[in-house]
Formats: sequence, C-alpha cells, structure tokens
Amino acid sequence: MQSTVTDMSVQGTILVLDGTSTNRIMLKVQLTAAWYHVAQGENLRGLDGLLKRVRPDLILTAQSLPDGTAADVKKVVMADPDLADIPIVAIAPQNDKSARLRALSDGLDDVLAHPFKDTLLLARVRSLLRARADTQELQDNSGSPCLGFAEATSAFATPPKAARAALLTQSAKTGALWQKALSEHTHHSLSIHTISNLHRLLSGPIPDAIIVEIDGESSGLSILADLKSRGATRHTVLIGILRKDDASLAAEALDRGADAICMAGFCPRETLLRLDNQLARKSRIDQMRDSLRRGIAESWVDPLTGLHNRRYAMRALKQIARQSAQTGLGFTVMVADLDHFKSINDKFGHAGGDQVLIETAERMRNSIGSDGFVARIGGEEFLIGLPETTGPRALGIARTVCDDICQCPFDLSEAAEPIAVTISIGLITADDNTFRQGIPPAPLDNMIKSADTALYAAKKAGRNQVMVQDHAA
Amino acid sequence: MQSTVTDMSVQGTILVLDGTSTNRIMLKVQLTAAWYHVAQGENLRGLDGLLKRVRPDLILTAQSLPDGTAADVKKVVMADPDLADIPIVAIAPQNDKSARLRALSDGLDDVLAHPFKDTLLLARVRSLLRARADTQELQDNSGSPCLGFAEATSAFATPPKAARAALLTQSAKTGALWQKALSEHTHHSLSIHTISNLHRLLSGPIPDAIIVEIDGESSGLSILADLKSRGATRHTVLIGILRKDDASLAAEALDRGADAICMAGFCPRETLLRLDNQLARKSRIDQMRDSLRRGIAESWVDPLTGLHNRRYAMRALKQIARQSAQTGLGFTVMVADLDHFKSINDKFGHAGGDQVLIETAERMRNSIGSDGFVARIGGEEFLIGLPETTGPRALGIARTVCDDICQCPFDLSEAAEPIAVTISIGLITADDNTFRQGIPPAPLDNMIKSADTALYAAKKAGRNQVMVQDHAA
Repeated sequence: MQSTVTDMSVQGTILVLDGTSTNRIMLKVQLTAAWYHVAQGENLRGLDGLLKRVRPDLILTAQSLPDGTAADVKKVVMADPDLADIPIVAIAPQNDKSARLRALSDGLDDVLAHPFKDTLLLARVRSLLRARADTQELQDNSGSPCLGFAEATSAFATPPKAARAALLTQSAKTGALWQKALSEHTHHSLSIHTISNLHRLLSGPIPDAIIVEIDGESSGLSILADLKSRGATRHTVLIGILRKDDASLAAEALDRGADAICMAGFCPRETLLRLDNQLARKSRIDQMRDSLRRGIAESWVDPLTGLHNRRYAMRALKQIARQSAQTGLGFTVMVADLDHFKSINDKFGHAGGDQVLIETAERMRNSIGSDGFVARIGGEEFLIGLPETTGPRALGIARTVCDDICQCPFDLSEAAEPIAVTISIGLITADDNTFRQGIPPAPLDNMIKSADTALYAAKKAGRNQVMVQDHAA
Repeated sequence: MQSTVTDMSVQGTILVLDGTSTNRIMLKVQLTAAWYHVAQGENLRGLDGLLKRVRPDLILTAQSLPDGTAADVKKVVMADPDLADIPIVAIAPQNDKSARLRALSDGLDDVLAHPFKDTLLLARVRSLLRARADTQELQDNSGSPCLGFAEATSAFATPPKAARAALLTQSAKTGALWQKALSEHTHHSLSIHTISNLHRLLSGPIPDAIIVEIDGESSGLSILADLKSRGATRHTVLIGILRKDDASLAAEALDRGADAICMAGFCPRETLLRLDNQLARKSRIDQMRDSLRRGIAESWVDPLTGLHNRRYAMRALKQIARQSAQTGLGFTVMVADLDHFKSINDKFGHAGGDQVLIETAERMRNSIGSDGFVARIGGEEFLIGLPETTGPRALGIARTVCDDICQCPFDLSEAAEPIAVTISIGLITADDNTFRQGIPPAPLDNMIKSADTALYAAKKAGRNQVMVQDHAA
C-alpha cells in the first residue's frame, strides 16, 4: 500500500478513504496518473494509526464511511496537533447541494462531487498541497519540531471572529445584491468594490478576505494572480464566485491563487461557509507566522532586562567590524560588570538583584542611546558595541555609563534606603589611528579578551571606573 | 513624484528609469492603470538617493540611460545590501536579440521589448513582485532588521556553481536536441525527461532547475502549477520555453509559477543566461532561508555544551505540563548544580571550567537518554524535565545522573590528574498520586522554585546527592 519513503515525500501523498473499493481505485488511478503517491483506507477504525504511518499531505474522504462520516475523519485529524493541518476534502454525490453544505459546515476544506473532472480535481489538489507546503515550511522553520506550534494550533476550535471581507464584483449593483444577501447571515463586515476600481480596495486597510466575481473573461483571473503577488494581499483569503459551473475556469482560478471556489453562481450559504472555513485556516497560519516571528524576536533578547542578549551582541559586533573594515572608521568594544553584585544578591535576595539588573539596563540604554548597542551577556555582565567611533569619544561614553550608575543610588522595594551601585568597564577601540597605520583590527575574539583584561584592571584599581586597553591581545 | 507611504506599501512601488519622458509616461500610464504606484527617474546620477527615498519593489529601466546603462543601475542596487534584492527589468527595443542577450548577461532579472503588451508586462511584474514579497517575508522574519542577511547576500558576486537542471519536454527527441545544444556551453549537468513521464523526474533527486517546454496546450501550463504546488519542487527554478512568441501564453505561464520565460522558441544562449540568473537568485534565497532556519535552531541551544538552553527548557516544560494535564500522567522537574564549580574555575581557569561543563553535559545527556530533556539554564546550573513519570522513577533517574558524574573523575587538559566532580540535584514530581487526590499540579514557576529549594537542601546536606521536594511551594 505504500511505496518507498523517498517517493512519498517528493511526490506528495494523498490518502483516499472510501468504503467502496471501486471508488478508491478510480481515484487512485486518476491521482497516480498525476504522479501522486496514493494510500487507501476503508473506514474510521484504525485511521489514527494509518495517518501516523502514511503521513498524508492531503485526505480525500467519502462523506459517509462504513463506520462514520467525513466530519469524524476531521475530528481524528484535529485531535493530533502534528496532523491538524492536513487538508481534508469530502467527496459528495453530484448535484447534492445539501451534502455539500453539510461538509462545509463540518469544517472540511472542500467538497468535490463524484465523479470528478480531472482538471478540477487536480487543480484543487494542487491548491491544497500548496497551502499545506506553506504550513509545513513554517513548521520546519520553527526549528524545534518537538515544540512545534502546539499553542498556536490549540486555537482550533474557537469560532471565527468578526472579520473584514471585501466583495469585488464587475458591477457595483452585483456587489450590493451580494452584500444584502450575505449580511443577513453573518457578523463579518462586508465592503463593496468593483474590479475596475481595485485601487480603492488596495489603498484602504487590507481586508481579511476578498470574494471575487469571476466571469469567463480573464480580468477576474488575473485579479487573483495580482492579489496573490502583492505583499499586502498575498495572505488574504481569496474566494472566487463563478457565474456558472465551469470546471476548467475553476481550475484556472485555483491555479492562480484562489483559496476556494463557489462553482454554480452566488449562493450566500455556501459563500459564508467557505469564508468561515478559510478564515479559520488563515487565522491558524497567521498565528503560526506570528509565533515564529515572535520566537525569532525573543531569541535576540535577554528576558529579564529586555536588553539584547549575547547571541545578538556577537552577531552585531561582527557586522560592526565588517562595516568598519569597509569604511575605515573605528569601532569600540566595551565589557561592563556590576561591582560587588554577589553581596547585593546576598543582602536583598534574587528579587533585589533582579531589580538592580533591570535598573542598570535601563540606565545603560539611556547612556548609550543611539550611539551603539548594549547587551547583557552574563549574570551581571554587559557588552557594549559602538560603531564609527574614536578612542576619546568611546572613553567619554564609557565614563558617562559609569557616572549614570554611581551618581544616583538605586531604589529597591527590598531595601529601606536607596543603595549605592557601581560598575566597572573595560574598553578597546580599533580606531582610525590603527587604520592609518595600516594595522588590521585584531580578530573580534581578541578584542573582547582585551576589553576583559581592561575590565579586570578596572576592578583591581578599585572598581567604579573605566580602563582602556591600548592594543588587542 | 511620490504618493503617501500607506499607498506605496500596499500597492507595490515600481521605479521607472528612462531618459525619454514620453517612454516614462507611457509606462506610468500602463502601470498606474494596474494600480501600482509609479516613481520616475531619468538617469543614474542621484539614483542612490532616489532608491532610498522611494524604496521600490521593482525597477524597470531603459537599457541605455543618458549617463549609463541598465548594468550600471544593477551595480548601484547591488552595492546596498538593503536594496540588493530588488528585481530589475531592462527595456530593450523590439526584436533586438543582441540587446536582450546583453541585458541578461549583465545579470538583469528580465528584459522586455518596447512597446509592451499589457498582459505580458503585468504578468511579468506580478511574477517578480511575488518573488520579491517572498524575499521580503524572509527578511522580516529574521526578526532583527539591523542584522539582516548581510552575510548571506555577500555571496552575490560569486559565479553560479555547477547545478543540476532537468529538461522537461513533450518528446525525448526534443530533450536530446536541447541537451546537445546546451551542454556545449555550460558546466551544469542536464538530464532529459518527458512530460508524460514526470514521475521519473519526481522520484529522483530534485534538480535545482527545470526547463519546461510549453506549447499551446494546457499540459505545459498545468505542469508549472503542479511543480510549484509540490513541497519538493516549490523552490525549484522553473524556466518555460515557448515554441512561438505568444504574449498571452507567456503571461499564463508566469502567473502559474514560471520564474522566467524564453519567448521565441529554444535559443541555447538565452536559455543558459536565464538559467544562470535564476540559479543565482535561488541560491541567495536558499541562503537566506538556511540562515533563518539555522538562526532559529541556534536560538534553542546553549552554544558551549550543545544542550538546550533556558528558553527551550521553559517552553518544553510548559508543553510537558500541558500534556500531563491531558493524560493525567505525572511529570518531573529537576534542577541540578555542579558542586564547588567556582573552585574548579579558580584552579584550572575558564578553559578548565568549560571542559567540565562540556563533559557534564555529555554525561547528563547519556544518563537521561530519551526519558526527557536536559538544558543548561545558568553558569553551572541545569534543568531536567521528564514527562510521563512517577516520583520513584524520577528519583532513580536523578540518582543515576548524580552517580554518572561522581563515579568517574574528569580528565582535563589543564590538570595533571583526573579531577573529582560532583553534582547536587533537587527534584519535584507532579505524579499520579497528586492527580488521584484531585490536587492540580502547582504552576510551573512554583514547581521550579520547589526543585530549587530541594537543591538548596541537597547542598546543605553535604552535596553530591538528590533531594526530593514533596509538595510544590
């Protein structure tokens, strides 16, 4: 039932669920001819295990199975966060509108009528696989499969929030009719736009979904490609409404980026069901995207102080050094360390120590301003990088940092009186003198070591002061 | 020359560069009618400033400007890493093949013949904007705009490496002819496949580029959509070869995912130039994607020991606690701290201390195996999470960790003799007893605090031992 693993991953695997073997075989023939790998199942029992073994990219299921329905298949899939984004298409009898609406209201990604027109079946498969590949890529990018997006996908069951949808029609009159018919049954806000005045749609706030009228002409089709190509609308849900049941036009619309198609003219009920399903899918993907972005942003930050972290500092210093090599302007590395921090911790507890770190971070950020960056690289240790600077200027800035810490005692909720805090700083500058003499700046590691040596000297000399290292180690 | 910023960002901004104002105006009319924001420039002088002001998503430039060429425009764009991914299209006279080939060998993303057929111009604009939006999204996702992908994009100037390209034609004979004509002028490896046997292409290792023959029929077109929809080939370069100069067919091919089109039959020179340009672009985007992925993977790891870091530990514990709440099975939090680590550092220096940390990490990883995770959460402090565990089992595992550290002394390159190292561990389990008694497990923060309290007790009691906290703080 399964070809080799290599084959499957490359081709895309489609799981066909149907109690009737002739139906399965027919689909298998069509899909295999289009170079997909096809796995088969007959019923709900054992589906969980089958899914884990086969890991399909898409499921095509009969609306009724011997021991359940397409809606039950969806429940099994949703129960496993690893599988929850596999698109599921129900197969309903031809011309059975109520079966179609039921499948959609069960939250299935689409419903196709049996027997299938090849063009439409394959275009629908392509469109869902494309969406699936987007999700997979986000998932892969999370970098840690075992952590995944469990949080994001837990929002699955929540009903769709009120969204903004635009109706994009040939004539404003059609738009008004659609708006009237839809607005009775939905809490989404619906705006009307004509295709000839797309500009107005693009210059306002971008809607969550656009419902596009597609007639035989190419304008509706190229509008789909257009909206998918613009940065602002590429993630907007696109639903195409076809005037008549035209499988090849539907296939073209799907290939150009439509997320869903209503085939037989405008039906308010079907449009809204498809809209809600697509909005729910979009909201999950948006959450994955946000969670990924937030995760990456977090990964450069020290959570306690909100300063940059060591990872950021190393990357930023590299960049500063590279720029400096290009411009010939100097740059500075400083290492700063709070004095007697252990005794603050001992006296006022971890909470008190944390308050001192947070306040120190705040003051350093202010002292440095836009001259460079400050990062927390260890318990009470900070690293400062200054691009485009000279030795004297860097020394001035370091002294300001030192003064801004010691000149005003720290208020701690744990301490009766404000307490005195001081900091020691070691610094080294690869300055224009170095460059003028043709001396290449030392490797970054050595510069940091030199700054560390200067810091050590500052501590030895009595703390609360700045020491400058002349030459890199 | 510039509308509001909102407009620009939503619509997509195209910069038109041409010394002749009628040419600029003609293009502006065409592009504005398609709802793009158009900015204009006349020559190379001041281009740098113009680019920074306008921040175009795409540049259309005459092949000759009053003070330079399209190739010079490319140089200006490439010089600024922030702009380097803006696609540039040259405008050449109709039927001037040598001008077309020159533009391509200058590395421009495409060359269009003046005057333009609307369909083709707009499809090309859409296709390039789509690629541009992909890049922008990767850039945004890097989470730290000032760090960006400077490293990745520095690979710009390197000549394309030998790549694997597949020729996908209607007949094997055409493929053989193409292969012969191309292989004389390229070091890329070229394989032959027929469209009716796409399966063979999909089951082998995926090529870097696929050169597809597109005739009037739909098979070539849907192959493009098909390849773009499969996870394995979605990032593969797709070059369409049209049998005849058919602008609307070319537009359809671009809208379905072709990265480049050769319009007037098979020309080996043009095909190879387009192939190299597209491969260079793909390699930059692949590097961005890899760098993003690597960055994310790094962000969960402690660089010294290769263990997970604190950020991972907190996220993983949350997940374990959530699962535990669902399954009713217990879980354990351990905090471990090397004994007298400061004195190891003092005696053997930072390098010696680092060796001890690395060896400790290695041993802990082995002791825990697949039972849970180990993370380094501070200097010499580790956190261990065990899902689906009972109190007694967790205690057993903790004792193993302890024994595996103390039973075999550590070899240090800095020490004459192997040195004895020990570790203390505090642990707490939310076990099935807790659940059976209907006590909800304490919030994670409290569990960690409790494990910390137990660790403190282990230190007090003489170190090199495990202490268990019965109830969460």
